[in-house]
Amino acid sequence: MASLNQMSSLELKNLKDELLKKYDEFKGRNLKLDMSRGKPSVSQLDLSVGMMDCLTSKDDFKTADGTDARNYAIFDGISEAKKLFADILGVSSSEIIVGGNSSLNLMYDTVQRALQFGVAGSECPWNKLDKVKFLCPSPGYDRHFAICELFGIEMITVPMTESGPDMDVVEELVASDEQIKGIWCVPMYSNPDGITYSDDTVKRFAALKSAAADFRIFWDNAYCVHHLSDDQDHLLNLMDECKKVGTQDRVFMFASTSKVSFAGAGVAALAASENNLAFIKKQLSIQTIGHDKVNQLRHMRFFKDLEYLKNHMEKHAEIIKPKFDMVLTWLNKEIAPLEIASWKNPKGGYFVSVNTLEGCAKRTVELCKQAGVVLTPAGATFPYGNDPQDSNIRIAPTFPPVSELDLAMELFCLCIKIASVEKLLNQ
Amino acid sequence: MASLNQMSSLELKNLKDELLKKYDEFKGRNLKLDMSRGKPSVSQLDLSVGMMDCLTSKDDFKTADGTDARNYAIFDGISEAKKLFADILGVSSSEIIVGGNSSLNLMYDTVQRALQFGVAGSECPWNKLDKVKFLCPSPGYDRHFAICELFGIEMITVPMTESGPDMDVVEELVASDEQIKGIWCVPMYSNPDGITYSDDTVKRFAALKSAAADFRIFWDNAYCVHHLSDDQDHLLNLMDECKKVGTQDRVFMFASTSKVSFAGAGVAALAASENNLAFIKKQLSIQTIGHDKVNQLRHMRFFKDLEYLKNHMEKHAEIIKPKFDMVLTWLNKEIAPLEIASWKNPKGGYFVSVNTLEGCAKRTVELCKQAGVVLTPAGATFPYGNDPQDSNIRIAPTFPPVSELDLAMELFCLCIKIASVEKLLNQ
Repeated sequence: MASLNQMSSLELKNLKDELLKKYDEFKGRNLKLDMSRGKPSVSQLDLSVGMMDCLTSKDDFKTADGTDARNYAIFDGISEAKKLFADILGVSSSEIIVGGNSSLNLMYDTVQRALQFGVAGSECPWNKLDKVKFLCPSPGYDRHFAICELFGIEMITVPMTESGPDMDVVEELVASDEQIKGIWCVPMYSNPDGITYSDDTVKRFAALKSAAADFRIFWDNAYCVHHLSDDQDHLLNLMDECKKVGTQDRVFMFASTSKVSFAGAGVAALAASENNLAFIKKQLSIQTIGHDKVNQLRHMRFFKDLEYLKNHMEKHAEIIKPKFDMVLTWLNKEIAPLEIASWKNPKGGYFVSVNTLEGCAKRTVELCKQAGVVLTPAGATFPYGNDPQDSNIRIAPTFPPVSELDLAMELFCLCIKIASVEKLLNQ
Repeated sequence: MASLNQMSSLELKNLKDELLKKYDEFKGRNLKLDMSRGKPSVSQLDLSVGMMDCLTSKDDFKTADGTDARNYAIFDGISEAKKLFADILGVSSSEIIVGGNSSLNLMYDTVQRALQFGVAGSECPWNKLDKVKFLCPSPGYDRHFAICELFGIEMITVPMTESGPDMDVVEELVASDEQIKGIWCVPMYSNPDGITYSDDTVKRFAALKSAAADFRIFWDNAYCVHHLSDDQDHLLNLMDECKKVGTQDRVFMFASTSKVSFAGAGVAALAASENNLAFIKKQLSIQTIGHDKVNQLRHMRFFKDLEYLKNHMEKHAEIIKPKFDMVLTWLNKEIAPLEIASWKNPKGGYFVSVNTLEGCAKRTVELCKQAGVVLTPAGATFPYGNDPQDSNIRIAPTFPPVSELDLAMELFCLCIKIASVEKLLNQ
């Protein structure tokens, strides 16, 4: 099949009839598939069940420093867990706070604390300002944007490029507008594009001139160990670069084991300069006596160190790489010749980001939904759920079994085609 | 020995010399004992290690509704955990949000949300008001007061009586001052007095006329299943009483298994009206994808239901009742005849609350510390750490082994005597 743009109206109409016939067949199958969220599959979760045997009634519960993990103590994390996250994020243990089970919760709390108390060096709590704005490289992670929306933080969309956020735009905005207090970044295998920020991008983040003295980069390194194969991206360490130019107080880094061990029952961590952490600990020590040290210890007994954890991640890759390949195979076979969409070919992370013809994303997602396949809502990858091009669709291939994914992708390609034909006929 | 008040100066001086001699002997022993916090002992923690065998690699991870506890889902708690906490707190499952490992964290977050967003029915977020005040029945829990202090919430001390907070004072203040938005309560086996609120007190809480439309009672039911023997207090259910008079939106209830299973690795819950929960869930669903369901499931597999949990609590009582008895035996033997302090005889909870002669608490705690026994800082049980009588000392007998507790109490009695003699000599 040739590019749809080359087709006459009649050809398009005939094609549409043909596509709708197939679509009706799909509807008759009563599918019920979910590709909406970046969830690990059951096989991936099973990789970590051995962790549950690491702390049984026969084991001791002593942390490295002799603390009983079952009792009150240590609000900022056991030392061995700090060490592991320090290694994961490329900082020192003194720059780590180990949290509960959710890095999203850590991010939410970090924003909430900044609003209520400011951050280290703030002239006043952000709540006291007329307006607070965040830069939102987009497409991006909908839950980041939801935090801003809930708190009434104005979101400014920044375009994504192949090397990360458009740094010309970032530099100009951050330097000129002191109401801009933060930026959301998923710097490695970004959600949803799968892009890893270039060395130059990272260096420019470190060197940013900011109008706000208390500007912060929210560096959500969710996929830092989530490679799909040995062909891996490399991310320059932002904290190192910041230290070279004295801007280390600018960075909040986040990571978790949600997609290493169990999603929602892992361990999360925040990394920041000692200056930032000293400020945060004054509030955190009032918020909690401590997060779950038993789960921290269980993770440490199982994962041991970064080397072991990396080996574990290879097993994840073995399971999910074929799913990414399947998504790309469908797109390359069914969509590429028609020239009606483009997509990234990520080397890690959890998503394949597809850009349809302008104005076709919502319709494609709706068609999929009507036939029983739930995708992330179109627009979700942009602030306020509003994709100005109505073009981006986030595919999350990890959760469904391969057979279901195969079916879902067949339908997805069909729906893109229908939406595209409809658009071209209406032009 | 007779009442110290009957002694002449000479007798007091001789007694002081004698006491200081004993005290110096204690100092020579280089003790290092900690009775500062309400922590369970190792034997108590060992009661729950069987829980660690309830979810091994051989077990399934399906919750009652078939959800895989290891994956993202269910931000407000698995249904069986909701049911258990509903039974513990005497509400329905639809009135429960299961949180993470810490009820303190739930309380902090509940106050922070009220500041940022208000509560259901608020005219505006509490942050937008010139001033917010909380009533603080005292002596009370220092961590409640620390939350208020951090947020700049003005604390108003309300005296405790044998039947709970002085409700005449509470009623008058809450009815007349719309800046009063909340009150901290530990209604059963209160921290530190061990007092359980009377039926009349609970009914008066339900029927309070409040100047603030969005006044809230923070009902920290931390010790609701923590009886010391079969001779138990009974607490009227505040939610039931509120429903009778239509004030059910007034209540936030909190509980946790911190002193049931593991301190800091248990499960906590918030109970409130469906109206309140609907308001909170809008924010909570942005803060987290969900708390640790694996730990919730582990707890449910072990504790099964309220009946089983109550049996488990009897084992705790067997361990800690002798410690409470030891504290009281020392006080009755050494202090009662001298008439220099009074104390409560709690039927549950974690503390024995001692009131020294006015002006003797700080000195007593300091003397203990100098000899190697750390107590909760004097004053900690009052807002801003300021006990106007300098009289209340909170004894936490659960953590030390019996032999250490014996020694610590011998020293404690000695130190009260020294502080009292010093005071009487200086009058």
